[in-house]
Amino acid sequence: MSSTGDIQALIDMMARLPGLGPRSARRAVLHMIRKRALLLTPLADQMHRVAASVRECATCGNLGSTDRCDICLSEKRANGELCVVEDVADLWAMERSGVFRGRYHVLGGTLSALDAIGPEELRIPRLLDRIAPEGITEVILALNATVDGQTTAHYIADQLEGRVMLTSLAQGVPIGGELDYLDDGTITAALRARKQL
Amino acid sequence: MSSTGDIQALIDMMARLPGLGPRSARRAVLHMIRKRALLLTPLADQMHRVAASVRECATCGNLGSTDRCDICLSEKRANGELCVVEDVADLWAMERSGVFRGRYHVLGGTLSALDAIGPEELRIPRLLDRIAPEGITEVILALNATVDGQTTAHYIADQLEGRVMLTSLAQGVPIGGELDYLDDGTITAALRARKQL
Repeated sequence: MSSTGDIQALIDMMARLPGLGPRSARRAVLHMIRKRALLLTPLADQMHRVAASVRECATCGNLGSTDRCDICLSEKRANGELCVVEDVADLWAMERSGVFRGRYHVLGGTLSALDAIGPEELRIPRLLDRIAPEGITEVILALNATVDGQTTAHYIADQLEGRVMLTSLAQGVPIGGELDYLDDGTITAALRARKQL
Repeated sequence: MSSTGDIQALIDMMARLPGLGPRSARRAVLHMIRKRALLLTPLADQMHRVAASVRECATCGNLGSTDRCDICLSEKRANGELCVVEDVADLWAMERSGVFRGRYHVLGGTLSALDAIGPEELRIPRLLDRIAPEGITEVILALNATVDGQTTAHYIADQLEGRVMLTSLAQGVPIGGELDYLDDGTITAALRARKQL
């Protein structure tokens, strides 16, 4: 029984990952057992390596292998621009676009009255502390266009009012987007921010 | 760079699991890193445990922690009935129904001319060798209703003709199934095998 139990325990753990359920976890585990040497053992090793090496950057909250992340340490990044994001995943998404050359600040979530998350639970105090010493001139609020995201953006804007230039990402029709499939709010925003050709 | 590389390597490996792509792998990895002590390390440990302990049953091909699996070792299982399945996942599905009390034989795939998989690549010779010594009287061919599955069932039936009773799973309307959503083949099979009330 012990090994069937081991497999079931692994399936139960895999099923807790986002995007996987009991059925897909079972499929993934069987696939891994079939490719034990090629996938199961290397994957477990890699997980241990990540668990041991990855830490949060003390400055911006990005993930890295040292106390300051690669972006904070890089001399090629512009010092004046700071892009505020909710989450490391958002930072990665911004980096994939490859267009922003400044530095980041990862909040680690959004303000939420329901979940009792205030500024102290996020990296907001640390954000305010960075402005003067780093000579930041522009803060780009790249928070998600959700209620909580926008509440957080307003709070930060209030705190930084008059100290730096504050900007936010443009809202409008996504590239490749079809009007027919867009919500009313997006169309309203795109129309209001229309540009002369 | 090394740790971002470590995370990316982990994402690439997770993305090779069935049902996960680059995007969902990224989400799963970030989730695991956030719950490092609760999820990432225990998951890696459990994977190592499974990689070290799980082996194929020498008799039937099921997964277990010893050279013979729990089902083959169990004295409560009926000796005369042998259920032939393609894969361990199919055996698990049969076991979940809890209705079959005999033993199993896992082929490890299906015959496939395209992929050059002949009887020797599967556990078919070992199946033929089990019939007489184990006193098997009925072989249930529970293979998938695919072309390859049915080809394999025909091949095995040819080999065992006259030696044992051969049966296959009934085909028909699944429980809770709606006729409107069923394919023509299933409706044809269900109509041909109709039963008197």
